[in-house]
Amino acid sequence: MEEKRKRVEVCYTPGEYHYFKDEFEIVVVIDVLRATTAICVAFEYGIKSIIPVPTLEDALEYKKKGYLVGAERKGQIVEGFDFGNSPYSYMKDEFRGKDVVLTTTNGTKSIAVAKDADTVVIGALANLDALTEWLIKQNKNTLCLCSGWQDKFNLEDTICAGAISDALINTGDFTSVEDSSIAAKYLYLSAKDNYMGYLKSSSHRRRLKNLNLNEDIKYCLTPNKTSVIPILKDGKLTKL
Amino acid sequence: MEEKRKRVEVCYTPGEYHYFKDEFEIVVVIDVLRATTAICVAFEYGIKSIIPVPTLEDALEYKKKGYLVGAERKGQIVEGFDFGNSPYSYMKDEFRGKDVVLTTTNGTKSIAVAKDADTVVIGALANLDALTEWLIKQNKNTLCLCSGWQDKFNLEDTICAGAISDALINTGDFTSVEDSSIAAKYLYLSAKDNYMGYLKSSSHRRRLKNLNLNEDIKYCLTPNKTSVIPILKDGKLTKL
Repeated sequence: MEEKRKRVEVCYTPGEYHYFKDEFEIVVVIDVLRATTAICVAFEYGIKSIIPVPTLEDALEYKKKGYLVGAERKGQIVEGFDFGNSPYSYMKDEFRGKDVVLTTTNGTKSIAVAKDADTVVIGALANLDALTEWLIKQNKNTLCLCSGWQDKFNLEDTICAGAISDALINTGDFTSVEDSSIAAKYLYLSAKDNYMGYLKSSSHRRRLKNLNLNEDIKYCLTPNKTSVIPILKDGKLTKL
Repeated sequence: MEEKRKRVEVCYTPGEYHYFKDEFEIVVVIDVLRATTAICVAFEYGIKSIIPVPTLEDALEYKKKGYLVGAERKGQIVEGFDFGNSPYSYMKDEFRGKDVVLTTTNGTKSIAVAKDADTVVIGALANLDALTEWLIKQNKNTLCLCSGWQDKFNLEDTICAGAISDALINTGDFTSVEDSSIAAKYLYLSAKDNYMGYLKSSSHRRRLKNLNLNEDIKYCLTPNKTSVIPILKDGKLTKL
């Protein structure tokens, strides 16, 4: 019998994207701590667009042209820039209706890696239900692309990817065949009742906690703060 | 306070080994289904040495020289070779005291990738307790290198790596800091009471089941069939 269900799979790092890329019409880029959460928040608070750029050099170019530019590396705002990827920094009136440029350690790199896919959307726990509802309606082969940490696996993105997969598979219209997807789902099912507890020993949580970013972590691990779905069009993120 | 515990970490695929390699004195190469299980069995049944080679071309060269040579690709014995990586194929008197050459889809590639580490040993569920006991005695920084499937994550190797990490961490002398290791441990803890059930949807189990290799799978997922620890010395595996 021919398999009529669409696939939903999980790729753990941008470095492994080339093993997956040709098989999926939709790529969901995930960087829970904190880029993709911050991007969702920014649109919730009325930002007009976000131009994600992979390097600091690109970001500086835009700054010279007068753009509002955010830059984060290793959890901290880069010197010379006004904001990084804290969700709280986007809850300001000054961003309303503006085009903003952003570069981060992992998230904006994943967006760059996936940019040639038919459709690229932004996923986080922050927009989980709205996103999965939309993905189910599209009914296309969907890849959850985790940003990881410096091209290594990370737990929070994987759990978010597992949550998305689980919701899609539960409709009966999607299936996963890759072990990475099966493991992501298992990890999500163990984590879902207590994300903070489950992630307490995760490397990125430790890293951000050491930078006194515990409030950011709590925010990023709280599902469904917003129902926006940011989408990439011509190199620019806008609200779907 | 300085961290005095040694690290035990998990690398999911040979392709990611370069992110880890400089920090570990011992590398445990894992390919549960089936190369590293078969290698353990071979030594249990009296083989003298195994020369792991990454390519079929290398394997053919040895065959011309008169060696007993095994070759497996995508779960099947390669045409022109006498055996592959079924553990059962090594339970024969003809191998006793012999030097054997082996190439497999994933396992022998991981050995090749790790060959320059101070110490390379072979791990599987088949030699779990003996191996972890030995690793604990060594008290060195230890990397579990999963072979994966064609450079993608696989579940059975990750669970075996999680089992090794868990045993080492439980002594209090080891710690993990990477998210890949934390996830491997979580996956092991959920899987340990029923490996067959947990892995029933895994891609490699499906693949081998389709090839009527269910008996092999059962064997490979049964812990502690043997207490041998194969070790790599000068390009050759021998019994420690």
